[in-house]
Amino acid sequence: MQNISGTHKIGILGAGQLGRMLALEAHRLGLGVQLYDPATDACANQVANATTAEWNDTAALIKFANSVDSITLEFENIPLSAIQVLAQHKTVLPNSSVLHVAQDRLHEKTLFGQLNIATTIFFTVTSLAELQHATNKLGLPAVLKTRRLGYDGKGQFLIQKPDQTEQAWQQLGANPDGLILEEFISFQRELSLIAVRDHNSQTKFYPLTENHHAGGILRFSIAPATQTEQLQTQAEEHCTKILKHFNYVGVLAVEFFERNGMLLANEIAPRVHNSGHWTQNGATTNQFENHMRAVAGLPLGDTNATSTSAMFNLIGHVPSVASILSIPDAKLHLYGKTERAGRKLGHINLTAENHAALKEKMAAMQKIIVTGH
Amino acid sequence: MQNISGTHKIGILGAGQLGRMLALEAHRLGLGVQLYDPATDACANQVANATTAEWNDTAALIKFANSVDSITLEFENIPLSAIQVLAQHKTVLPNSSVLHVAQDRLHEKTLFGQLNIATTIFFTVTSLAELQHATNKLGLPAVLKTRRLGYDGKGQFLIQKPDQTEQAWQQLGANPDGLILEEFISFQRELSLIAVRDHNSQTKFYPLTENHHAGGILRFSIAPATQTEQLQTQAEEHCTKILKHFNYVGVLAVEFFERNGMLLANEIAPRVHNSGHWTQNGATTNQFENHMRAVAGLPLGDTNATSTSAMFNLIGHVPSVASILSIPDAKLHLYGKTERAGRKLGHINLTAENHAALKEKMAAMQKIIVTGH
Repeated sequence: MQNISGTHKIGILGAGQLGRMLALEAHRLGLGVQLYDPATDACANQVANATTAEWNDTAALIKFANSVDSITLEFENIPLSAIQVLAQHKTVLPNSSVLHVAQDRLHEKTLFGQLNIATTIFFTVTSLAELQHATNKLGLPAVLKTRRLGYDGKGQFLIQKPDQTEQAWQQLGANPDGLILEEFISFQRELSLIAVRDHNSQTKFYPLTENHHAGGILRFSIAPATQTEQLQTQAEEHCTKILKHFNYVGVLAVEFFERNGMLLANEIAPRVHNSGHWTQNGATTNQFENHMRAVAGLPLGDTNATSTSAMFNLIGHVPSVASILSIPDAKLHLYGKTERAGRKLGHINLTAENHAALKEKMAAMQKIIVTGH
Repeated sequence: MQNISGTHKIGILGAGQLGRMLALEAHRLGLGVQLYDPATDACANQVANATTAEWNDTAALIKFANSVDSITLEFENIPLSAIQVLAQHKTVLPNSSVLHVAQDRLHEKTLFGQLNIATTIFFTVTSLAELQHATNKLGLPAVLKTRRLGYDGKGQFLIQKPDQTEQAWQQLGANPDGLILEEFISFQRELSLIAVRDHNSQTKFYPLTENHHAGGILRFSIAPATQTEQLQTQAEEHCTKILKHFNYVGVLAVEFFERNGMLLANEIAPRVHNSGHWTQNGATTNQFENHMRAVAGLPLGDTNATSTSAMFNLIGHVPSVASILSIPDAKLHLYGKTERAGRKLGHINLTAENHAALKEKMAAMQKIIVTGH
């Protein structure tokens, strides 16, 4: 593939589906793109120029940095050593201070505390004795989590009864990055807020999105979430503190639990987020375009919802494409991946005039996803 | 770039902006793409795998055909000899019989006559004497046109006075493909109809689009065109005849002149069309996605307009991107081309609730396009 001369070129760290969708929006805006990923078969490599190299390949990192105007990323768990090499040559957005926090649940929760953002109660745990002490303090059920590299429910153990404590420790205790024990709270909903902030500190928020998980993986989202008048303000206040703290540029997602009208921050994702995929077909400007605008120093686009949306993840298997496309207002986004259990292969956005109409369309789509046709 | 295994792969002949936008929609749907274009710097090569080879390179054509599941094209003037080689190995949509007609104004106008579709009066012209005879019959002004390879106003001469006849002949008479003289009609509007037809003969039409040219190049379009209740039916009837005649699969555009409530067919384009670019942001399914769906054997998407749209071409120069993106509801589509006089570099889609609101936004955008910022 060929490069565009004379335009801003963005380097994207990570070439999975998020990098792929960022690259497609960059193409649309006429921005240049160069991907960087250790995997030769990373799915974004199908749609843009790619550098295939390890995160510790300093020469490749420097060459990559010199070939682009600015650098962003599709996931937060890129080794900070790589970010530090890159940042010596080009601006990396978001910066390494955000990644330092987002890569570690302890740092993340500590920041929530510093910024006076409510979160779940937690204890750090470095031994079985500490774990037992913490379960006594918190009560059960409680969730033991690795501090680093957990996603889609991985690296977690739900301790429901005292006799599971030792089992939990056996499973996760050897993790070199350390653990935390979190209270297991009963909550009404999981909501996420997608924000975008530009170089001039202008900030825009999408409406809150309601997320439904199963097996630790996001299955579907509904946006805008209903009954969020007060919650939207609360969420934006929390998020603004985080954005300002880091002088953040780009898209940031914050996941919340809603408990009795109050939001508890669960985690932040310093990137475009699965719960924001509905914006591709249900908002004036989608999260991928807005992230690219922010990184390229362009003005942000409106973040208002243009309809009521649902987003379904396609996990492990893609149902009949013909069946999906037969549902009016269904927009299919596939990532060019081969099928594998638990793998996110694509998603479907559904739009409707209101939540009642959406519900009907969702039932039809859910049937296709479950039966495969 | 890398190929996707296990999915339908579409070969696209031509890697200009139309091929680029087709490829981007194919990526979104998870379809594989392979482009073919003689130009090494074709702008679609930035976004998908490309074969760079001449149209008469039989070995390259066969290799290309064997690497894809089906073949389509972004422009009608591909040598039929190339299509014939390809068609021996894979289905080419649209087929060579359509291209035979669309490549030659005489064949096109003859077809309109056969199908009982009103068109402008014309004469074939093979000598200065015949040209003089024809101008006498038609009266002046009249337009001398090459039968083949005319686009964006090229290969045309508007004869306004008798003493320009010889000059027109001197300019175009040597053209080996032959000429036609067409009556120059006064018309109210130029309207185009974009249709899409699938393998099962299911056909959908977008609402008529109103097109505004200057210097032979489309400058802007408005869709849906106003006051088209009867014209839409007329246009669809004409278009249906053409689609059925060719057992057409894919997107087809028909350009019409509106004269006193009647449509005169001007020309057909057997491909996605510049006057259909508004569908990217103003219709449920855009023309690029629907063309890819038709070629891949997938069901068509709805073609209804979701708002009132204007599309502005960016020709020769791209105004300040920051200024463009500051207009709410402006969507920018750039093609990754370097600036050059007369070159289509990108387009902007504007959407609004109604024509009055659209008009205001258009005025603001026109100012940016004219002043550059």
